[in-house]
Amino acid sequence: MIFEVKKESHGARAGVLKTHHGKVKTPCFMTIATAGAIKGLIPDEGKKLGAQIFLSNTYHLHLRPGEELVARAGGLHAFMGWQGPILTDSGGYQVFSLSKCRKVTQEGVQFQSHIDGTKVMLTPEKSIEIQQKLGSDIMMCLDECLPYPCDRKIAEESLELTTNWARRCRAAPPWRGRRDKACLVPTTTSSLFGIVQGGMYPDLRERSAKELVTIGFDGYAIGGLSVGEKAPLMYEMLEATVPHLPKDQPRYLMGVGTPQNILEAVERGIDMFDCVLPTRNARHGYLFTSQGPLRIKNESFREDFSPLDPKCSCPVCKKYSRAYLRHLLMSGEILGLRLLTWHNVAFYLKLMHDIRASILKGRFATFKKTFLKRYGQTP
Amino acid sequence: MIFEVKKESHGARAGVLKTHHGKVKTPCFMTIATAGAIKGLIPDEGKKLGAQIFLSNTYHLHLRPGEELVARAGGLHAFMGWQGPILTDSGGYQVFSLSKCRKVTQEGVQFQSHIDGTKVMLTPEKSIEIQQKLGSDIMMCLDECLPYPCDRKIAEESLELTTNWARRCRAAPPWRGRRDKACLVPTTTSSLFGIVQGGMYPDLRERSAKELVTIGFDGYAIGGLSVGEKAPLMYEMLEATVPHLPKDQPRYLMGVGTPQNILEAVERGIDMFDCVLPTRNARHGYLFTSQGPLRIKNESFREDFSPLDPKCSCPVCKKYSRAYLRHLLMSGEILGLRLLTWHNVAFYLKLMHDIRASILKGRFATFKKTFLKRYGQTP
Repeated sequence: MIFEVKKESHGARAGVLKTHHGKVKTPCFMTIATAGAIKGLIPDEGKKLGAQIFLSNTYHLHLRPGEELVARAGGLHAFMGWQGPILTDSGGYQVFSLSKCRKVTQEGVQFQSHIDGTKVMLTPEKSIEIQQKLGSDIMMCLDECLPYPCDRKIAEESLELTTNWARRCRAAPPWRGRRDKACLVPTTTSSLFGIVQGGMYPDLRERSAKELVTIGFDGYAIGGLSVGEKAPLMYEMLEATVPHLPKDQPRYLMGVGTPQNILEAVERGIDMFDCVLPTRNARHGYLFTSQGPLRIKNESFREDFSPLDPKCSCPVCKKYSRAYLRHLLMSGEILGLRLLTWHNVAFYLKLMHDIRASILKGRFATFKKTFLKRYGQTP
Repeated sequence: MIFEVKKESHGARAGVLKTHHGKVKTPCFMTIATAGAIKGLIPDEGKKLGAQIFLSNTYHLHLRPGEELVARAGGLHAFMGWQGPILTDSGGYQVFSLSKCRKVTQEGVQFQSHIDGTKVMLTPEKSIEIQQKLGSDIMMCLDECLPYPCDRKIAEESLELTTNWARRCRAAPPWRGRRDKACLVPTTTSSLFGIVQGGMYPDLRERSAKELVTIGFDGYAIGGLSVGEKAPLMYEMLEATVPHLPKDQPRYLMGVGTPQNILEAVERGIDMFDCVLPTRNARHGYLFTSQGPLRIKNESFREDFSPLDPKCSCPVCKKYSRAYLRHLLMSGEILGLRLLTWHNVAFYLKLMHDIRASILKGRFATFKKTFLKRYGQTP
């Protein structure tokens, strides 16, 4: 994987990330395709909005339909009909947030499937094997996700485990795929990112970053943030971490966040983002607009025949009214979920596009100020 | 409304129906857009598959969001973003199938909303008023829907009521709309169809048809079929009805049916159809293919990387495998519901297209035979 920083502006960087399945212009937002599907959208619809890369979840795909099946389908790209880049997470986050009866050992983490209760063991090597079989372009190391708040001693022990697991992920053998049954997953071209942990302790964050850099990865993610802490604390952790990461490699802030979070993180040198907010919030009727968030279920939109966001040029805002979208959601229409997701994804991708354009023009600070003035300051 | 029969072949007719919002080539299938939305699809996606006209439900739209709101939006066409023809039903069918505590009188039918339990009164005049406010191109008369089986005496009394209601629908005053608040619903151009009832009694069907023709409508529907009776009985009722309907006006068989039902009905002179099967069955994983129906949840499709229907050229069959579609449905992904609906709607519209083409070539009988040989004979 090749990463190139094209321009810096007020701490923010505009770059290009080259993967086996094409280029990604950064800063980028990776739309979530949990089980190999964006909620209600086909990948091409995302692409038309500016989506360059999707994120799929190893935990979900391992449990259903299983990475072996996906590999036999020709990998996740063929399976879901998307020929652009795909990043997969390690499965760790979902093990810690979705499954029950977890048992963490040095070896890995044993958990119960949230689908059928079967016991599953996820080790660093297993996570990499799964991600390779999925045909991931960018794989993530298995890490332990901490609760918040978390005692320093626990955070410290966990950090050691995460670093050990990262080392084992790096050393995991490449899975070369099989050429039978149309299995053409080009697994040896997958990149691997380490994940900085360390709770809310700046020195542990620094230590984690340095240990991972010593092991050496294709990029570095920052995990364990946006877990309940206040935004300024998150930004403090970024400031404690980013300076210790290589300048010529991509930096990915996992699972973050609101438009405000993204702007602040970009300013602190982050290149990649993913978050469930645009897709999950859409399904609950929480929409992102240039004027700030909007709850479409509010009675005030019942007869509002204007578009969701008059400044948005997405297919939804061009054609449908707030009143119609509200009606669809209130009526439980699948089309409502799809249209609202479509708009929210469009909003996030447009935001990233505008951020990047402002960096290239050397005007990121102005852009951020103008955006927040219109949108609102509070994350 | 102008209807023209272009060609007949073995009892089947190919025609053109001209409405205020454009032409409809018949025989046609009207995809259901219950509350002003096709399940998961936007109207333009339907149009690309060959959809010419959608059917929306007066009952649903009256209860939510209300016809007044839709009228203020500029009518249903503007509200749902579809500038082609729309047929609305009378609300009667849903009152009898969805709501509780019905009380039928000469005046109309009182019922409880299935949404919030409020009492609602639907009269023939009210049904027409609602449909006019929705801006319907083709309105339906309010009729009483009978259970099956049903005593002759009850069927006879019900028929009298239905004829009376039809007369009142015909005489209902035109609602001229209001030009304020962008309300441009061209209500005076709506057509009105009568609905033949009469249970499973051929002579009552004949009587109903003749009474309606005497009143005079723009087209004639046949209601109360596919309500539990065996297919041959349904066909017998069609044979008892169609000869008494004007040859130069459209005939619409309501709520029917399977591909086999449609072929048999076309052969008996039916021009228009609607049915929940393609959309509802899709959501349950029941797919229509040229080889017959397919239950995508079956284990046998788990690793089947071929398209749903190799003979289908819809966007779903061109891009996705049975294994992927099965995975989406098993995972509860909204995208699965959308893609499967997309395919089923495509199948029905393609069937209608092929039926019409065969009639125009004078080869309907051959087409029917060939289709059923591949698809299966049992409805």
